[in-house]
Amino acid sequence: MIGDTPPRHSILPLPGYAPTVGRLVAMLCYARHTTFKAVAGLTREQLDHLHDEDSNSIGALLAHVAAVERGYQVVTFEEREPTAAENAAWSAALKLGDQGRRCVRGRDLSFYVDELHRTREATLAALRARDDAWLEAPLRIAPGLNAHWAWFHVAEEEINHRGQIRWLRARLPKPVGSER
Amino acid sequence: MIGDTPPRHSILPLPGYAPTVGRLVAMLCYARHTTFKAVAGLTREQLDHLHDEDSNSIGALLAHVAAVERGYQVVTFEEREPTAAENAAWSAALKLGDQGRRCVRGRDLSFYVDELHRTREATLAALRARDDAWLEAPLRIAPGLNAHWAWFHVAEEEINHRGQIRWLRARLPKPVGSER
Repeated sequence: MIGDTPPRHSILPLPGYAPTVGRLVAMLCYARHTTFKAVAGLTREQLDHLHDEDSNSIGALLAHVAAVERGYQVVTFEEREPTAAENAAWSAALKLGDQGRRCVRGRDLSFYVDELHRTREATLAALRARDDAWLEAPLRIAPGLNAHWAWFHVAEEEINHRGQIRWLRARLPKPVGSER
Repeated sequence: MIGDTPPRHSILPLPGYAPTVGRLVAMLCYARHTTFKAVAGLTREQLDHLHDEDSNSIGALLAHVAAVERGYQVVTFEEREPTAAENAAWSAALKLGDQGRRCVRGRDLSFYVDELHRTREATLAALRARDDAWLEAPLRIAPGLNAHWAWFHVAEEEINHRGQIRWLRARLPKPVGSER
């Protein structure tokens, strides 16, 4: 249940997870499924398209969603700040804007989908190994948050950008020759 | 905790609600807080602005968020389909597009915010009166869903449109005289 199987329209505890963790996983997987649906079939040119000079491409938004999830893995599962090397590797996707427009492009859909899959597999493996007390305790390195909020926020961030992806997709240039 | 108090960055059971209901309410309230933040200070002209001929105005998106919540109140709390009168009243906000552009406009921010407040108060009153077994049982009129999914979906729909609102707000025309 990584996000490309048909979603359940129920939020319930899931086998293999603590009850509250499982409900959260159901939300994360539902959100991911809708993201994949929003980008299905897009070409490299469409993933790279910039609607205007301030826009992020759909490809960059997908890379951003994966990078945010990688970041929260470090903060919640490893209970540490990202290293300088991690920050450097994720910077363009995390910050978007000019750097994202310059650096995150030229990839097919499978590149972004594979990274989202790999990232999500690591998230689910870590969540399977944790319990509901862990989920709701303050984060050691950021006591103003708990992991439940952090992982809800990962879904929230993804859904926010999925809304933008849907808007941008509806306005992609029509392929040459598609007019009648 | 209707959405204009500072959000907690923790998802936890909340006093006055069953435990799983309370965690969901924390998510709903966090999402609503971010929506109010995204539209703070917008004028009537900005709320009515259409970015292009297919766009929804920010005002119409706010009305949509409230109408979706009203709809799920009927389906989950009253366990019935909306009546013809309800569908007629909510139609422009629910369907958006041409009808939304024509009918949902000419209102100040307080109009949309008041409707969101009233709607949310009704949601929270109903959720306070319900338990976790209710939350996760199949809906009587739609057994493929449960109320937990339905209310997660209300938040998800709101966050999706909040992403679009942020995008649209960043591109509103500058007020006359603001150029230097």
